[in-house]
Amino acid sequence: PSATARAEAAERLAGLATPAGALGRLGDLAVWVAATQGTVPPEPVERVRAVIFAGDHGVARHGVSAYPAEVTPAMVQLFLAGRAGVSALANQHGVAVRVLDIAVDADLDGPVAEHKIRRSSGAIHVEDALTPAETRAALDAGAVVAAEEIDAGAQLLISGDMGIGNTTPAAALIAASLGLPAIEVTGRGTGVDGDAFARKVEIVQQALDRAGDRVDDPVETLTALGSADLAAAAGFMATAARRGVPVLLDGVISVASAVLAERLAPGAAAWFAAGHRSTEPAQSLALDKLGLVPILDLGMRLGEGSGAVAAVPLVRSAAVVLRDVALLADLDL
Amino acid sequence: PSATARAEAAERLAGLATPAGALGRLGDLAVWVAATQGTVPPEPVERVRAVIFAGDHGVARHGVSAYPAEVTPAMVQLFLAGRAGVSALANQHGVAVRVLDIAVDADLDGPVAEHKIRRSSGAIHVEDALTPAETRAALDAGAVVAAEEIDAGAQLLISGDMGIGNTTPAAALIAASLGLPAIEVTGRGTGVDGDAFARKVEIVQQALDRAGDRVDDPVETLTALGSADLAAAAGFMATAARRGVPVLLDGVISVASAVLAERLAPGAAAWFAAGHRSTEPAQSLALDKLGLVPILDLGMRLGEGSGAVAAVPLVRSAAVVLRDVALLADLDL
Repeated sequence: PSATARAEAAERLAGLATPAGALGRLGDLAVWVAATQGTVPPEPVERVRAVIFAGDHGVARHGVSAYPAEVTPAMVQLFLAGRAGVSALANQHGVAVRVLDIAVDADLDGPVAEHKIRRSSGAIHVEDALTPAETRAALDAGAVVAAEEIDAGAQLLISGDMGIGNTTPAAALIAASLGLPAIEVTGRGTGVDGDAFARKVEIVQQALDRAGDRVDDPVETLTALGSADLAAAAGFMATAARRGVPVLLDGVISVASAVLAERLAPGAAAWFAAGHRSTEPAQSLALDKLGLVPILDLGMRLGEGSGAVAAVPLVRSAAVVLRDVALLADLDL
Repeated sequence: PSATARAEAAERLAGLATPAGALGRLGDLAVWVAATQGTVPPEPVERVRAVIFAGDHGVARHGVSAYPAEVTPAMVQLFLAGRAGVSALANQHGVAVRVLDIAVDADLDGPVAEHKIRRSSGAIHVEDALTPAETRAALDAGAVVAAEEIDAGAQLLISGDMGIGNTTPAAALIAASLGLPAIEVTGRGTGVDGDAFARKVEIVQQALDRAGDRVDDPVETLTALGSADLAAAAGFMATAARRGVPVLLDGVISVASAVLAERLAPGAAAWFAAGHRSTEPAQSLALDKLGLVPILDLGMRLGEGSGAVAAVPLVRSAAVVLRDVALLADLDL
């Protein structure tokens, strides 16, 4: 983002016909939008595009989720029909949604599968999620998709996710990147508790132990502990940052990919804002690491990009306030 | 609100094609919207109308604010010109804004003054804010305005405020209604600190001491410690509740009026939702008392109804999710 635009935006914010600081974090967000655009006042944030990276996870067959893996392809169909949670939010707020089968454990036809890497990803506590070639292919797929969305005019990108079991690799990726043990990062996902939760913590820790020092390298981290959909999202975000297009992060899956994007393309996080705080502990830990404070904190844990889409009106609010409010100097005093 | 609709809405929420509880507080908000409408699924919340009650306060001449009282009429002109903070937000989100000079310490012409009660209100630490007749007239004005907005089709109402010094009577009203001392409720308003802040606390406590037992009666409380604009907003909210139209609360001024509305019309608070958490301590204390949890928490303290208008897209999001998302039973599993 532009340091010059940031400074100019902060100056304009201080000169608005509002008490100093009265806009709170909406003001900070406005300054960030202006810095990412390199324009003061910022342009209205009209063209927002969300991409949902869908994929299954080998760990889902090992009791880490409250839902069976068969839900993943059914949900992909629901996105295509425009009837999922994120669809309703996106429709309300004029956000374009594209869903991609990156690694669903089913054979889906048509454009949804145009970037498919494989069926499912490896069960990370006993095997690598991907081969090195698959990791590269997934990163490249995400990069291509980001470029397509940017070329289609996106001013702001969102990465969503769908895949039963996905909070397990997300927790592992964050733990590995932050140097934390499984017990600190593992959450309840769609709703596991008791023995199933204990089993999930154990699986994350087994995965971390299995990966060992390989996690010092971001690509190896994705190969060992990630999944094709998470790698694609990381490539998507790294490319957005490289192209200078801001990204609004969603929950723990999106933020895990963002952590990897920052490792792959250092400085990328400056192009990211956090849409919401999810209930997953790894998400908050990773946002702290990235230096991001979420806009919303509503206890949401739906995934699909829903928390980010719900926050889009706040990003728009921030931009219009900095753009349209009179300056104190214009007041008739 | 309808208990039947609330129960039906909760049942529908539990049956959506999302994990149980995954929508977090967005789900709770959806249930509240449905209960206020008495309709499941809820209608989209399209017609939102905000009324800004403007008025000056005698205490502003006693060093409680960082800004001079002359700012109040200048800001009223800015609302009329559609160039204030709330104007930009309302324009972005399709919210109608009406500004009324209830007690500005200036002579304004035209429809803006059609409900004017008086110029300014008394300095509450040394005199009553209003005469009993003025309090009644202000409550009635708010009631008439609410009825007009409801007759114009409002599905959701917002009460905003403008008036230098207004956090002082708001803090006094909340302290009196909750039985708290000045030191616990007084905040920094537009930005007072040091000696000015100590003076503000002293003025609020002097006002509370002066009012004594009169605060046991809500109308007397407004007469002694309020102002014409705060009384009008209280009448506005009480009437909205009586008419069964929900209100989205803003910051400390709006919430102080809501506390009085609940005292005037017990049960009214069930029709209120909290748009945001402001930085004023009295606002959080009063929201707790009303049993409300704010939607946004962005450190905003602009007033004008801005925090509530910024939260409108979340109310709309909640309603559309409960309305438009497929049911789990519809999933192809």
